[in-house]
Amino acid sequence: MPRVCAVIMAGGVGTRFWPRSREKSPKQFLEIIGKKTMIQTTVERLDKFVRIQDIFVVTNKVQQSLVKKQIPELPEENIIIEPVGRNTAPCIGLAAMHVMKLDPNAVMVVLPSDHLIQKVDEFQRVLGVAVETAYKSSSLLTIGITPTHPETGYGYIQMFDEKGDHNPYFDKGVLKVKTFAEKPNLATAEKFLKSGDFLWNSGMFVWRADAILNQMHICLPDMFAELVKIQQVLGTPQYQSTLDKVYGLIRGISIDYGVMEKADVVYVIPGDFGWNDVGSWREVLKVSGKDDNGNSITGKVISRDAKNCLVYSPDKLVAVIGAEDLVIINSEDAILVCKTNRSQDVKEIADYLRRKQMNEYL
Amino acid sequence: MPRVCAVIMAGGVGTRFWPRSREKSPKQFLEIIGKKTMIQTTVERLDKFVRIQDIFVVTNKVQQSLVKKQIPELPEENIIIEPVGRNTAPCIGLAAMHVMKLDPNAVMVVLPSDHLIQKVDEFQRVLGVAVETAYKSSSLLTIGITPTHPETGYGYIQMFDEKGDHNPYFDKGVLKVKTFAEKPNLATAEKFLKSGDFLWNSGMFVWRADAILNQMHICLPDMFAELVKIQQVLGTPQYQSTLDKVYGLIRGISIDYGVMEKADVVYVIPGDFGWNDVGSWREVLKVSGKDDNGNSITGKVISRDAKNCLVYSPDKLVAVIGAEDLVIINSEDAILVCKTNRSQDVKEIADYLRRKQMNEYL
Repeated sequence: MPRVCAVIMAGGVGTRFWPRSREKSPKQFLEIIGKKTMIQTTVERLDKFVRIQDIFVVTNKVQQSLVKKQIPELPEENIIIEPVGRNTAPCIGLAAMHVMKLDPNAVMVVLPSDHLIQKVDEFQRVLGVAVETAYKSSSLLTIGITPTHPETGYGYIQMFDEKGDHNPYFDKGVLKVKTFAEKPNLATAEKFLKSGDFLWNSGMFVWRADAILNQMHICLPDMFAELVKIQQVLGTPQYQSTLDKVYGLIRGISIDYGVMEKADVVYVIPGDFGWNDVGSWREVLKVSGKDDNGNSITGKVISRDAKNCLVYSPDKLVAVIGAEDLVIINSEDAILVCKTNRSQDVKEIADYLRRKQMNEYL
Repeated sequence: MPRVCAVIMAGGVGTRFWPRSREKSPKQFLEIIGKKTMIQTTVERLDKFVRIQDIFVVTNKVQQSLVKKQIPELPEENIIIEPVGRNTAPCIGLAAMHVMKLDPNAVMVVLPSDHLIQKVDEFQRVLGVAVETAYKSSSLLTIGITPTHPETGYGYIQMFDEKGDHNPYFDKGVLKVKTFAEKPNLATAEKFLKSGDFLWNSGMFVWRADAILNQMHICLPDMFAELVKIQQVLGTPQYQSTLDKVYGLIRGISIDYGVMEKADVVYVIPGDFGWNDVGSWREVLKVSGKDDNGNSITGKVISRDAKNCLVYSPDKLVAVIGAEDLVIINSEDAILVCKTNRSQDVKEIADYLRRKQMNEYL
């Protein structure tokens, strides 16, 4: 069996979770669901599948100390610091080079740090299939989520069916990708759902480190050339200064757009393990335990005829009377009161605060 | 011209203004509207009409220091402390005795401490008519508010019209009261409004101190007998101990029910001076200055598509997205989020806190 390394991408800012999520402590470092932070749960979910010394976390300087604090068992050298954010392709390329250095034959599992997975056993089973497939081929694998409703907030992956273009050497759960689709409008999403050959793009990838670097060489030669400059000094005293110098010059591009949509060895494994990207407060309410009135309440809260409300208040007492479909988040220095179906617009508040230079709230 | 004394009743608890209103600092001591507290505004409104040394404030032990702090120019002996609350009749009787001691011929104006009056000149004019009438007769006068809508939250006063039963010695604005009516249901309130001979009961009264005491003697002889025991020791060292002993034994009863509905010398003067009893957060929103979306905002607030919301937050930043008809009050240790039309039910929260002995929030 191959050595499996996990790369957890934890550099996001998660402005949709303002006022809890802040630049210094974004979503993945918060206990959004349950008593552990999202990144802690992400690491925990790999238990018995990936050894802690084979887990890498990619983050930034500001969040480095949070990673150390929340995952104290993680070897310090496994924290990869991006000098600046450049979207997922350079991040994954850099991480792949770290993985290669550890083991040139390693299979690399790329995972977001802030998603929810409710059926961990099934998740590990799917991941197992992906790892085996990646080990014995140079293919790029992604985990697609079997859609449950016509969601407009996710990207989609269209697959060939088993009869269509199946590699006979692969597990029959591994299907060739036909195309990637951006977030659709509702009509298109309904068509996708009805067709039965579209999956949600989960942002989880599995491949051999050498395979993804090879594809980057082909699909993103300029970026790859820059990354090689960093690879050459990996483990030497010049690493940090080279990284700082080179990384900022790289053009930001996503792995989906930069590699997955171009490469011809791309496969998807449909997974159905209670996945949710927890992309907004609305999704938090959806996946949280609720009382008889559909309210999810954390903290000291009194309610009268409140319905379908998400209420969070660790300090002050909150009384809710007659409110419906409302998100009420009381953080240390700010309060959000937002209609549930407007949860996406929380991002606008963060944008506004940035424009007005109200940095203490960012 | 008579000496005019004002008695401001300031013993209420105002639980409908939780979480701002607390037992130790109820509504009348808060800046609910504008930059002054309601009691400060009530005192200010008497400027050029009643001298400060002729103003009495009836309150309780807990609130005594707040009265001193908020009205520092008020002579300390003009603060009348009720040992316990016993509704308005005993409160007014006790105050009348204090007024009598100051000047046996004084006319006494009884005012709530927590109402809003927007047209102060017109208020003073109406009060002037009442004072003159009270001075030259033994009648009991109340100020009735010309209703603007079929309000179900107020008591009503039915008057005879000018031709009906008018005292020719009185100003023609002074009308005999036919009957008092409790808070009506909507259908009745609509009938009242249509009839044109009903006014809102404002809880403002004008009479000579000796006249109201005389009527108490007739209408509430038991209560009067107890009050006389206090009157006999007024200004002596026995005052406090007698008050403490006697007052608690008196049966609580309102001046409306105990005297006004029984006496036959009761007159009303219709007033139209932008009055509002500010009985709930909904009323606060109604009388407050609002932005183009109907929001009244105090503190650091960012809103996106908020409509008809009352938002108060002196400390934390509040972001409101997509909310309509909502009251959001952030006090030091508690937050209220309440549908505007449920403002009356804020009282239930206070009741619940009392039942659960969560006294720190009361």
